[in-house]
Amino acid sequence: MVAAQDPESFFATAPPLRDADAIAAKLQAFIASNSRSSAGGGNGRPIVCVTSGGTTVPLEQRCVRYIDNFSSGHRGAASTEYFLKAGYAVIFLHRRGSCQPYCRFLPDDSFLKFLDVNEESKVQVAESHETVVKKAIGDYCKAMEGGSLLKLPFTTIFEYLQLLRMVATSVSSVGLRGMFYLAAAVSDFYVPWESMAKHKIQSAGGPLEMRLSQVPKMLSVLRNQWAPLAFCISFKLETDSDILVQKADMAMKKYKMNIVVANLLATYREEVIIVTNGEKNTIRRCNSDEDLEEKIIKLLAHKHSKYIYGSLVGATRVETAL
Amino acid sequence: MVAAQDPESFFATAPPLRDADAIAAKLQAFIASNSRSSAGGGNGRPIVCVTSGGTTVPLEQRCVRYIDNFSSGHRGAASTEYFLKAGYAVIFLHRRGSCQPYCRFLPDDSFLKFLDVNEESKVQVAESHETVVKKAIGDYCKAMEGGSLLKLPFTTIFEYLQLLRMVATSVSSVGLRGMFYLAAAVSDFYVPWESMAKHKIQSAGGPLEMRLSQVPKMLSVLRNQWAPLAFCISFKLETDSDILVQKADMAMKKYKMNIVVANLLATYREEVIIVTNGEKNTIRRCNSDEDLEEKIIKLLAHKHSKYIYGSLVGATRVETAL
Repeated sequence: MVAAQDPESFFATAPPLRDADAIAAKLQAFIASNSRSSAGGGNGRPIVCVTSGGTTVPLEQRCVRYIDNFSSGHRGAASTEYFLKAGYAVIFLHRRGSCQPYCRFLPDDSFLKFLDVNEESKVQVAESHETVVKKAIGDYCKAMEGGSLLKLPFTTIFEYLQLLRMVATSVSSVGLRGMFYLAAAVSDFYVPWESMAKHKIQSAGGPLEMRLSQVPKMLSVLRNQWAPLAFCISFKLETDSDILVQKADMAMKKYKMNIVVANLLATYREEVIIVTNGEKNTIRRCNSDEDLEEKIIKLLAHKHSKYIYGSLVGATRVETAL
Repeated sequence: MVAAQDPESFFATAPPLRDADAIAAKLQAFIASNSRSSAGGGNGRPIVCVTSGGTTVPLEQRCVRYIDNFSSGHRGAASTEYFLKAGYAVIFLHRRGSCQPYCRFLPDDSFLKFLDVNEESKVQVAESHETVVKKAIGDYCKAMEGGSLLKLPFTTIFEYLQLLRMVATSVSSVGLRGMFYLAAAVSDFYVPWESMAKHKIQSAGGPLEMRLSQVPKMLSVLRNQWAPLAFCISFKLETDSDILVQKADMAMKKYKMNIVVANLLATYREEVIIVTNGEKNTIRRCNSDEDLEEKIIKLLAHKHSKYIYGSLVGATRVETAL
């Protein structure tokens, strides 16, 4: 059980990622093309990795049952749109089937509701939805054609952490220009692959006893080893307001995050608390048409610039002093 | 633990279904309108309840984590289309967000891919997808306007079983004309509501120990109490081919199903075994463009007619003999 909490053994025993080489190549190309000086200011665009949606924990190797974390992926998808608008290149590391950028307005149950067949018997979008769909298509195409959006999907905790490691070690090459916006709901517990039932667990044997191991805390590894210069933002979601800020403070210190975004399940679309070292800002949306993410990303992009500038000035001072 | 395996206590302790009265009223109206003799043959349309998608088992009352069962809902959605085509009225009891009838052709990751903006700057469906989308809209509208499709969504095992009971006791009023096609992947284990953690389980305390109770076997209750005359089809999904047919046979006998559809996780789209009393038919699809469900539903509708006819003839014989 001790071994399972160590990052090295987690990766050593995880089922290997499919198409790892192809994904690595895509990542390299994406980072390279967004690092040419023509892509952004002097040194290329800032690059953010947005993680989004919940991870699953398989309970069986040939998976029928799994533990899942609640997350629609709405926050990650919306944030991706605003990061792109703010000039970032975005690696959107998302749960398969979760909410996608520019698709948030889709009706939940059936997209058929907003399609019509017109007089020339062509399928078209109903007039009521036309404006919003047109804008979405335009923005989506711009991001894809401009090469500033890379989508990488995951389902299990094993896929997620292997992809995160791959993205982080790649993004570390852009140093301070890198950002991690860790909005995914990552499982705290898992069943190590080798101790997992091979086949579907049979129900005839009475109640089911399960013992889940803790997932190693990869935030520390991300910070200390994978991408030590990147600007790191993690999220804290709780259901109990009494412990929220305290847990966010603990995460700040323990994992040396630059920022922790704290939110409650009941109000996460209305309000978040941005916790930095020694500062707490509550951000609220004023009406339900507004995206809270617009304000969050504006603030974060600003803090990221200050962080880059501060580090460069600091470095210059050190160099000058030497 | 014994109490939790009894259907009565399961329902007594489950969190109550939202909008239960409104759903009950919709159901009554749906069954009544499809039972007028003009709706189908002499006695109205046959009515099938198709269950589809997986149920979740919340691990916390304010739910962040839950156990889920693998199921895209593809089989239930496809089967619904073919039941409608075969003249059935369908109650589609489905997992929220799972695959919907007439939407199966949708690209997985982004619907934006098949929309274009045309010369008059109107949004339209790309030509490559036009035929299939037009047919889908036509079929969907026909089913909805004809009043032969009723969609009822669920997420948790608590919602699913309460809805199933409500549907079954309503459908029992149409006697032999009723059918249950139980394709949903229903959890075998759950955490009783009153023994569930109120808030998000904290990860600081080391490994997580969980003890899950068995969900009471509601198939027996459906068969014996809720809708004793309905034609019942259950599904058996396994990952181990060695025990599949044996488990299907056991389910036939134990729950007195009319038919059990047995399938393996690895091949469920290619092949199923239809198990009836004393008979096993393997149904395979010949190519990947074909829906296996078309063949399954054709066979089931035929068996259902024979079942109705057989029961009526049997009843007449008894009456004549008296």
